[in-house]
Amino acid sequence: MINNTLVEKLYTKDKRAIARLISLIESDNTLTSEYIKNIHFKVGNAYRIGITGPPGAGKSTITNQLTKYYLTQNKTIGIIAVDPTSPFTGGALLGDRVRMTDIGMNENVYIRSMATRGSLGGLSKKAIDASDVLDAAGFDVILLETVGVGQSELDIAQAADTTIVVLVPESGDSVQAMKAGLMEIADLFILNKSDRPGSQQAYTALQTILMIKDHDENTWLPRIFKSVASENKGIDDIAEEIDRHKTFLNEKNLFLFKREKQAKVRIKEIVEHKLKDELWRETGENSLNSTLDKVILGSFSPYHIAEEIIEKFKNKL
Amino acid sequence: MINNTLVEKLYTKDKRAIARLISLIESDNTLTSEYIKNIHFKVGNAYRIGITGPPGAGKSTITNQLTKYYLTQNKTIGIIAVDPTSPFTGGALLGDRVRMTDIGMNENVYIRSMATRGSLGGLSKKAIDASDVLDAAGFDVILLETVGVGQSELDIAQAADTTIVVLVPESGDSVQAMKAGLMEIADLFILNKSDRPGSQQAYTALQTILMIKDHDENTWLPRIFKSVASENKGIDDIAEEIDRHKTFLNEKNLFLFKREKQAKVRIKEIVEHKLKDELWRETGENSLNSTLDKVILGSFSPYHIAEEIIEKFKNKL
Repeated sequence: MINNTLVEKLYTKDKRAIARLISLIESDNTLTSEYIKNIHFKVGNAYRIGITGPPGAGKSTITNQLTKYYLTQNKTIGIIAVDPTSPFTGGALLGDRVRMTDIGMNENVYIRSMATRGSLGGLSKKAIDASDVLDAAGFDVILLETVGVGQSELDIAQAADTTIVVLVPESGDSVQAMKAGLMEIADLFILNKSDRPGSQQAYTALQTILMIKDHDENTWLPRIFKSVASENKGIDDIAEEIDRHKTFLNEKNLFLFKREKQAKVRIKEIVEHKLKDELWRETGENSLNSTLDKVILGSFSPYHIAEEIIEKFKNKL
Repeated sequence: MINNTLVEKLYTKDKRAIARLISLIESDNTLTSEYIKNIHFKVGNAYRIGITGPPGAGKSTITNQLTKYYLTQNKTIGIIAVDPTSPFTGGALLGDRVRMTDIGMNENVYIRSMATRGSLGGLSKKAIDASDVLDAAGFDVILLETVGVGQSELDIAQAADTTIVVLVPESGDSVQAMKAGLMEIADLFILNKSDRPGSQQAYTALQTILMIKDHDENTWLPRIFKSVASENKGIDDIAEEIDRHKTFLNEKNLFLFKREKQAKVRIKEIVEHKLKDELWRETGENSLNSTLDKVILGSFSPYHIAEEIIEKFKNKL
């Protein structure tokens, strides 16, 4: 059941209403669906900026500085910070969040940390739903900050209109793995902590990788910005580049195209989630437990059991 | 259709047959299901060791040394190395693999790299299926090496009987995020490159975290091993600890219990995968594309469209 008072409060950017709605998204799939359908007509006006990169690259500091910049432009800012969590304890590492308390107190800023629980996944789905809530609330800018180490973090970053990838000189070899995914989603790179040794080398390496990418006049070429975010150096340039990217998307008619692609990915994820929910609600743990002995004792493979479960599910529908 | 000659060759540890079957697992879900069901009666005898940790911690070197150790014990060893991939280019970073060529030539060792493609996930499912192939082939030990940065890598590590988490002193803050997940799955820790500065501090920090975990006599307490794997220091101790863990699992009757839990996770994943496959085969991209305009133009939310798709799917079943 939709609580209309809650929704009305959301539209006034009431922080407690926003918090309640996002908590609801984290805990109740059925209600999430109802609320997102209800507020959808208000969604679509916020500009979404994704900020991702390896742990320790300084994403929070950049988020912080960008927020302060947008505040000077009289914008309202909603922040979703996705923290990686232990799949076992459910405890997010909120250390970075603490540094953000100065902007969090501002009435034109809303900050929310989200963390995943269990192995059911769905974090990207929830973070995007939460962005819809902030969008409907009327925030001008939404910053989606994630630690870019897993698929779901990449998914979130791609749900943005402009995606920033933050790297540090020493990322070098050790984050090669991450960069492999990150290189492709970046609309701009920030080479943070660029006062550190190895900075020029890292810059050149990154530049080289970017230059070998295929492109034509309808392809946006990501640029690299050196930054020392803790000293607030370079943030104006970065904000300007985000604007330039926004203008590019609009001029090339790529903006709606990008959002359409994102909607498709999102719908797919929602469908799969709903179906999974139904499946395990119908099937139940018990029927799974009762057949487990058969696998362990060797007579049936997990694939046999899986087929049995699917048949039963289909018959119930 | 099952190729019986291929299966017969698998049972003789024919490397080309193994390679073909694993390629098949990577590319064809229906055939995977048929083959895993077919070979299941041969599966269950190998001891599975998971090796995970952040990029650059030295996992490949440890895998390499452990393999050499088991060779001196006249064991046969199968290795599945899961490489993180760009979800866009599909290119795995196989640099580490190159270092392994010396053991790869040994007739008692089989090495296979696996990488994920696209955002469909399922890498953990495929890596575990591939382990079944090696198990059925009769390898005594299976080493599952993954880069422990995402959920699917954690899933793979947990599919092992003994899970080793490799860390380095400088992992420190920057891998806090990863450690959060890694701490809970480790049966033993290797603090690699322990000749480096900060090693004692890292050791103490790790020890402290381990000590605050709840435990009783039926709980295995993970120990921390300092190692300089590139010099082959400490590998005997590590192999001995793996044995001690195996004995512990057997004595406490936890071995079957652990495998049962793993089978449950696996069956769930197979069921969800099969259902997803069917869903998108039935629904098709076209019906999704045709409804997309409605979302973009604002009249329907992604949740509306998702429900429509699910209804259609159910009606078709």
